[in-house]
This record gives sequence, structure tokens and C-alpha cells, in this order.
Amino acid sequence: MIKGKKRGQLVVLSGPSGVGKGTVIQYVRQRRPELTFSISYTTRKPREGEVDHVHYHYVSVETFRQMIEEGAFLEYTRYQENYYGTAKADVEALREQGQDVLLDIEVEGGSNVRRLCPESTLIFLLPPSFEELEARLRGRKSESDEVIRGRLSRAREELQEVPNYDFLLVNDHVEQTGEEMLAILKAQECRVSARLDLLKEM
Amino acid sequence: MIKGKKRGQLVVLSGPSGVGKGTVIQYVRQRRPELTFSISYTTRKPREGEVDHVHYHYVSVETFRQMIEEGAFLEYTRYQENYYGTAKADVEALREQGQDVLLDIEVEGGSNVRRLCPESTLIFLLPPSFEELEARLRGRKSESDEVIRGRLSRAREELQEVPNYDFLLVNDHVEQTGEEMLAILKAQECRVSARLDLLKEM
Repeated sequence: MIKGKKRGQLVVLSGPSGVGKGTVIQYVRQRRPELTFSISYTTRKPREGEVDHVHYHYVSVETFRQMIEEGAFLEYTRYQENYYGTAKADVEALREQGQDVLLDIEVEGGSNVRRLCPESTLIFLLPPSFEELEARLRGRKSESDEVIRGRLSRAREELQEVPNYDFLLVNDHVEQTGEEMLAILKAQECRVSARLDLLKEM
Repeated sequence: MIKGKKRGQLVVLSGPSGVGKGTVIQYVRQRRPELTFSISYTTRKPREGEVDHVHYHYVSVETFRQMIEEGAFLEYTRYQENYYGTAKADVEALREQGQDVLLDIEVEGGSNVRRLCPESTLIFLLPPSFEELEARLRGRKSESDEVIRGRLSRAREELQEVPNYDFLLVNDHVEQTGEEMLAILKAQECRVSARLDLLKEM
């Protein structure tokens, strides 16, 4: 760690597909630009408008599997024929520089991060209702009925994981949700466990 | 509990005498007036400008001891011949009405509150340094050298209790400290444990 710099925090934001994680993250990062959005690896094809190394690192299945074998991932998951994962080394390098790292990952991945990194902050984002979630997924117009039904059924399963998370936000109004997330980030910096150095100084 | 109203949270703010708890509380309550500042019972005499039932409930030693016997206190402590305590019933009544309750109490009391109320939020307020704390105590001009030396020595002992607290704030600039405390209050409302009802609704 660079001397005099505090190690950054690790924050996980998870929630059902379509809940609006991207919008909340955008709101939070505009007001807290020092928060780094770690870029995941994926084997899925870029959607229209997505850029390699910006939205994801797009890699082949072979490369991804090799990284799994090398223990390169802090978490990874497979969903609808595609892999998604976060490289341990990426996250560690950023935190050592004192940057806070935000992971936008699947619910399953959150529990893995907690296991490997107990001091991480886990935030679960809920839709206001399942009806609203379905409407948002259909609004995307990028997925078939079958895919949408799959996502909704998965969303219900994912709710079972909420008790493993620290915080629960409902994405009703992005501004309110974003402000709650900003408060969580600030509060977590004030935890006794994160400020033991201050105590030693005294 | 009144139907449809969430039970209020219980927040403890502790720290060495002279650290500036009152100023931080004033800052926070101006921005969050729904936060109720529970009034403690004490056997000490009012200082100039202090008003009964506003700053404290001033009671006799006999009355205070009777309340201890009746188990009326959520926490109480004795300091320099005086008792200070928080009535359980006062706090419970406010929380049941959905109000958040803030306790400004001695460090010793914080641990008692945690024991009786595990979901409470414990915040410890540190001075920027011991030199600064001494300067603040002397600035009050209300206490003898002996009392001030006693307070400083007690402050050093109290630091041992910090690991029992959840959050650690340094009262360097009241605005920054106040904003951190506001963030903590908002974040604690977002804890999964405080929002399980939302999950049930889905």
C-alpha cells in the first residue's frame, strides 16, 4: 500500500437483471467520481453501444476458463451460456492505490466476495415490484419472451440471498436510491474497523 | 407499534467530555428534525443556562436510586458524585411512535445499550487530539484544574471502549462530522435487518 493512503473499500451492488443497477451507479459516480467501477470479464457478445474495456472486458470462453483455473477471479458466475467474472488482481491494485471499488455483479457472486473479503459492503437493489421489473425488462426490447421469463424466475430465487447482504435498497426513484447508496459509502468509511489507524495515532 | 409506522432507530453518541457532542448533535438535528434527542435524568445541578426537562431531567439522588431499583434505566452511570441515566420507557415510547432516538451518553453507558438493544447504532466521537481536548475543556471556564485533569485521564481510559462501538468520528470540523453522522443515520435505515418488511411485501 502506498504510505499515507488508506486502502479503498470494496462495494458490491447486486440485484435482479433489469432492476436498474446501471442507472443508480451512474448517479452515484457522478457525485463521487473517485469511486472506481471495476470492469468485469465476460464471454457474452457486446450489446449495441457497448465498448470493450469500458463496459466489460470481452474474452473468449477459452481465456475465461483458463483464468478460472489460475484462480484469477474474486467471483465469477455463468448465466445463460455466458460467463461473468471480476479479476482479483484488478480489484486489489485499485484498492491498494486507495481507490474505492464498486462491483456490479450477480447475486451469487456477492456471497463469494463476502467470503473472500469479509470487510466488503454488500448492497442489494430491489425493484419496486415484480410487475415493474417485468415492465422494465420488456422496455429494453433486446430480449425474447423466454429470456425475460427466465430473468423473472431467477429474480424470485435471488431474493433468497438478501439476508446475506448488508443493505437493501428499493430502486423506486433513482435520486433517492442514489443518495442512500452515497450515504452507505460514507458511513462505511466511518466504521471503527476502517478507522483503527486514527485510534492508534491518539 | 402504530400500524404502518416503522419502529424508530436508537442511536448512541458517546465520547470524552469536552469533545463537542452537543455541537454535532445541534448540526444533525437542524438537518434532521425528526431525530428525537432523548432527555437524560441526572442528579447534578443545572449549569448556567440549562433548563429542567430540556437539557436534563434534574432529580434528587433518592429519586434516581429508586429508579435504578425499579429497573427504569436503559443505561446509567455515576461520574463525579453525580448520576446520569436514560429511562427505558421514554426511549421505547418514542421508538414505538416511529421516532429515531439519539442518546448522548457516557462511554460506559453505550456498552449497556448495546447489550439491551443489539440493533442500536453506537457512534464514538473523538477529539482531533488530546491537546485540543484539553484546550476545549479549559475554554469552558466552568471547571477546576482538578476536574479537567480527571476528565482528561478518563478520556484516555474511554478510548479502550472504541472497539465496542460501530462508528468512529473525529470532531475536527463540525460540518464534516455532522455530515458523516447524517450519512450513518441514513445508511442504518437501509440495513437489510431494518427492511425485512419490504422483502416480505415482495
